[in-house]
Amino acid sequence: MSLFLEVVPVSEAVEVVRRIAPPPGCEDAALEDALYRVLARDVSADIDIPGFDRSTVDGYAVAAADTTGASEAIPAMLQCLGRIGMGSADAGSISPGSCRYVPTGGALPRGANAVVMIEHAELIGDDVLVHRPVAPGENVVFRGEDFRAGAVVLERGRVLSPRDIGVAAAVGADRVSVVTPPVIGIISTGNELVPATGVPGPGEVRDANSYLAGAFVAERGCRPVYFGIVRDEREALKNAVSSALDRCDAVLVSGGSSKDERDNTAAVIADLGEVLVHGIAIAPGKPTIIGTARGKPVIGLPGHPASAFVVLVAIVDHLLAAMRTTAVSRRTLRARLTQNVPSTRGREDYIRVRVRDGEAVPVFGKSGLLNTLVQSEGLVRIPATSEGLEVGEEVEVILW
Amino acid sequence: MSLFLEVVPVSEAVEVVRRIAPPPGCEDAALEDALYRVLARDVSADIDIPGFDRSTVDGYAVAAADTTGASEAIPAMLQCLGRIGMGSADAGSISPGSCRYVPTGGALPRGANAVVMIEHAELIGDDVLVHRPVAPGENVVFRGEDFRAGAVVLERGRVLSPRDIGVAAAVGADRVSVVTPPVIGIISTGNELVPATGVPGPGEVRDANSYLAGAFVAERGCRPVYFGIVRDEREALKNAVSSALDRCDAVLVSGGSSKDERDNTAAVIADLGEVLVHGIAIAPGKPTIIGTARGKPVIGLPGHPASAFVVLVAIVDHLLAAMRTTAVSRRTLRARLTQNVPSTRGREDYIRVRVRDGEAVPVFGKSGLLNTLVQSEGLVRIPATSEGLEVGEEVEVILW
Repeated sequence: MSLFLEVVPVSEAVEVVRRIAPPPGCEDAALEDALYRVLARDVSADIDIPGFDRSTVDGYAVAAADTTGASEAIPAMLQCLGRIGMGSADAGSISPGSCRYVPTGGALPRGANAVVMIEHAELIGDDVLVHRPVAPGENVVFRGEDFRAGAVVLERGRVLSPRDIGVAAAVGADRVSVVTPPVIGIISTGNELVPATGVPGPGEVRDANSYLAGAFVAERGCRPVYFGIVRDEREALKNAVSSALDRCDAVLVSGGSSKDERDNTAAVIADLGEVLVHGIAIAPGKPTIIGTARGKPVIGLPGHPASAFVVLVAIVDHLLAAMRTTAVSRRTLRARLTQNVPSTRGREDYIRVRVRDGEAVPVFGKSGLLNTLVQSEGLVRIPATSEGLEVGEEVEVILW
Repeated sequence: MSLFLEVVPVSEAVEVVRRIAPPPGCEDAALEDALYRVLARDVSADIDIPGFDRSTVDGYAVAAADTTGASEAIPAMLQCLGRIGMGSADAGSISPGSCRYVPTGGALPRGANAVVMIEHAELIGDDVLVHRPVAPGENVVFRGEDFRAGAVVLERGRVLSPRDIGVAAAVGADRVSVVTPPVIGIISTGNELVPATGVPGPGEVRDANSYLAGAFVAERGCRPVYFGIVRDEREALKNAVSSALDRCDAVLVSGGSSKDERDNTAAVIADLGEVLVHGIAIAPGKPTIIGTARGKPVIGLPGHPASAFVVLVAIVDHLLAAMRTTAVSRRTLRARLTQNVPSTRGREDYIRVRVRDGEAVPVFGKSGLLNTLVQSEGLVRIPATSEGLEVGEEVEVILW
């Protein structure tokens, strides 16, 4: 292997991870457990929603024509035939010149096509004085107006939000077919690493990447499985990756991916399968490795947590989205840069920024610093074609 | 009770829910289970991070002064004393005129204060030719530069992101003290309601609100407990709310909150405790009720799912945030309105919008329609002081 990495553009790396993403399984889930799950099949309305003409207000169900010309001065007078109970199976009927009281959500009686709000009517004995005309359809949702029986309500690939969950309940989808969460193996390599539970000795640091990567994949609806810390020894790493491949749909290995003697990750992937990318034109994150083994993606992340996180956002996010057959969901906002940021043409630079009142303040700091991760709120991407961004320029911030 | 509601402004309703929010409990959580949990206590660094002067690149650890004036034409020549292994307890030392190879993340030897990147040096036998000068501190993170021992790394009240989880691991916080998730009881009332598993008969609809509210509170890190559908009968509702109060920290009751004969929710809250607000100057969502019973908040939501959801976003979100002692977290973006939107002075209007290419397209539709919930991406708030918004106006969209 050569000393310097042969880097590929970010766009190519993204294409590669999308291509190698294994197709997901699917399973049934109870609707109350389906928040943020990805729909594997469309959800359709089983029946017309609503199933009957329905009032959207408390008021009097009328034939709209009976209210033509009604005003405060000259109200229309209708005979009230009674009240319709909520959920009652038969809302009865009205004939011209009559009406029935209907509560919000109640069914309209036959012969009615509008509802006069209670605020615009007055009940006197058995008669109702209507002070305002209503148009046909006013204050009414007609049968099937919300969803027609058979209509697709939520499309496959959609990540279910609380609103979607409510709507699915309304159309009778108390169970939904959803994508099985991909299981992602997490391995950290490095002779300098001790677990978060330990106290590092001289030359040692705690393993942050396992937690960082695990929480990142969990946030994207995947299930992390932790395989702990492996020493930078080829056999040990090979055994760990092999175990992870047994149990997982993809494997993330962090550390061990700088281009020097410690570079076991690429060798292990090559042993078990194939290295597709070794080096991406991205800063930070250049020494990233993309490969496959036993038909499953194996990604080598940089050892520095801050660099690893940029690669998770810029590359791995696309892999996980493809494995869930959904789109990458990014929260972004536009803000103005508070200072010039130089960049190198030919690579995508990701700078960390704080966002304040519409301004993006670059958080500079040595690449090995963790504190930039908690002091920043997002990333600004500088395209490979650019030599930098100028103060005052409007940029898109990928919130993380 | 009078026919019309005495409404309070949204700001007052928000103040009330914040005031009645019960203080949360706290508990320990394993770091890998702490994603999105709210920190109940600060996380501090137990030791200096890193614990030693650390290289951020692969290269040669040097005394920066030894590289002064080095160039491609006239390199500085240093004697290489060997390699430093990752995680080795003793990185040795260098004296003037010498250097040691150090991998990314390795410890600097005593006497070194900078690292020359491998790309700018050349190893010839035991000598290293340095082609570029380095400044003191270059490519080095010094001991404690990331976090000093005892420094607060993550403040209480913070909702833990994947980055925070990684940083907590680095400072040894493998367990964290977090807010106990508030338990929220969910009740739907209405004689017209059938469960999502059922098929509605004439005049009946499925209960969407239980699922909608449950998923909404789950999204905000609370635990929903479902108490099902209760008929609009005072004793039945009182029993259900009472059971919910036994097991939950707050209760959401949807439906039964229009100001007419069906209005049991307010009566039941008054029976069990106190009604503080009955009616909010908000559209949709006016007939919202805020009360307390046994020291716990009880909120009456409108029966229409679309209205209920606006109240969840505009009011209940503040309650849940206060119960978790954190800030309301809103994803917002700015967009231009594609058409005029009239509004009524004196109430806050929330209109649903679709967002496309920086434009906010109002999704109008009868208030009872569920499809507006899935066809919109957020809400635009029209303040009570406004009579409407104009086409082209820049507005803030609360993404939901």
